[in-house]
Amino acid sequence: MKQIIIASTSTVHGGQYLDYLLDTLKIHFKDTEEVIFIPYARPSGITHKQYTEKASDAFNKIEKKLIGLHTFKNPKEAIDNAKGIFVGGGNTFVLVNALYKFNLIESLQDAIKKGTPYLGTSAGSNICGLTMNTTNDMPIVYPPSFKTLGFVPFNINPHYLDPNPSSKHMGETRETRIKEFHQFNTQPVIGLREGSWIEVKDNNLQLKGNLQARIFEHNQEPYEVDPDTFLNELK
Amino acid sequence: MKQIIIASTSTVHGGQYLDYLLDTLKIHFKDTEEVIFIPYARPSGITHKQYTEKASDAFNKIEKKLIGLHTFKNPKEAIDNAKGIFVGGGNTFVLVNALYKFNLIESLQDAIKKGTPYLGTSAGSNICGLTMNTTNDMPIVYPPSFKTLGFVPFNINPHYLDPNPSSKHMGETRETRIKEFHQFNTQPVIGLREGSWIEVKDNNLQLKGNLQARIFEHNQEPYEVDPDTFLNELK
Repeated sequence: MKQIIIASTSTVHGGQYLDYLLDTLKIHFKDTEEVIFIPYARPSGITHKQYTEKASDAFNKIEKKLIGLHTFKNPKEAIDNAKGIFVGGGNTFVLVNALYKFNLIESLQDAIKKGTPYLGTSAGSNICGLTMNTTNDMPIVYPPSFKTLGFVPFNINPHYLDPNPSSKHMGETRETRIKEFHQFNTQPVIGLREGSWIEVKDNNLQLKGNLQARIFEHNQEPYEVDPDTFLNELK
Repeated sequence: MKQIIIASTSTVHGGQYLDYLLDTLKIHFKDTEEVIFIPYARPSGITHKQYTEKASDAFNKIEKKLIGLHTFKNPKEAIDNAKGIFVGGGNTFVLVNALYKFNLIESLQDAIKKGTPYLGTSAGSNICGLTMNTTNDMPIVYPPSFKTLGFVPFNINPHYLDPNPSSKHMGETRETRIKEFHQFNTQPVIGLREGSWIEVKDNNLQLKGNLQARIFEHNQEPYEVDPDTFLNELK
């Protein structure tokens, strides 16, 4: 049975790292005391060790031990044996590049199939979609492919940001960018606002958190869905 | 003699398409009445034809005729024979993908070497740098490489945006993103604010417009340079 949490962000404004999710994570990872942490997305370029320490501090609060994947000689084997997996945010290009380099795509897909609970935040959520083509990140490295894990049959846009009507900046809004995506791709995109997440339990996909999400389907006007809506039909 | 204008944006807030640059463009393209327009970046996914019409309206004001590159059977030959080139903004991934597809990278480099005047805005400016790794755009297609034209020995970040201290959004600031870039790459990056451009005349590179630009060099604190500063030493 699939057990996945796909969170827009690790940290909501004014909060501490993961604190808004800790109660949920306690249940999500209830069957294991150890969770493998994939620190490859390296936010602000911090080291794998620094990042693992930061994430560990949050997991310690719910009495779970995080083990950084960089500490294993054979990361593929570590994923195969994992009882829980957390992929943190940072730069999606850097993350995906590393997943291909260490040949982890299939291992992660197999882990999900056999029911290993997975948590992704930000870049770690982006990769749960079909492709990383709707990341907000800067393409600071060139990964061998934009194809990602495909845990859900659509794409994720984390940190979804509504247009700011008072902005004088002439760069594209998020909505414009996703509409451009749909000129070249047909899969739906979920704009997940900060503090929202998708909970996958086997074949049930449900929006969680207090905010609506914005859904972009090919050749349709975007629309909002309320918290607790099931997204099982979206593909 | 190289003649290049690398502009942060086509349009400043409250202005019309290219109007803040028209006096400059009149001089830049003084030796030709016809300019080849490369519409491949397709802002908001508009067609090549629609985009060429929009850009033509601006160039008509300075009595220049724009011809869309999509109207030529052999785009490579059209670039080889061009008397002036304008590459418009939009999505850098879509633009670079098309430049590789039509085998235009070398032709554009040759055109610049022999002195064909070039104008780039936004995505069209991004590609003047060594790589497109510092674009702000969404990676909606997967180009065969992130290497770009290398007209200047650094990278461009167009639409450069200062951090907004009142923002509650937890996505990375532009400065954070460029610092992450420097964890994996060593070339300098110029953050070009909207309304700024770099003018290249042979070996002289000068910041133009009314605003400072922000320079990011590897392993250094970022710093500001004033309008009219020469950037000849930056590499």
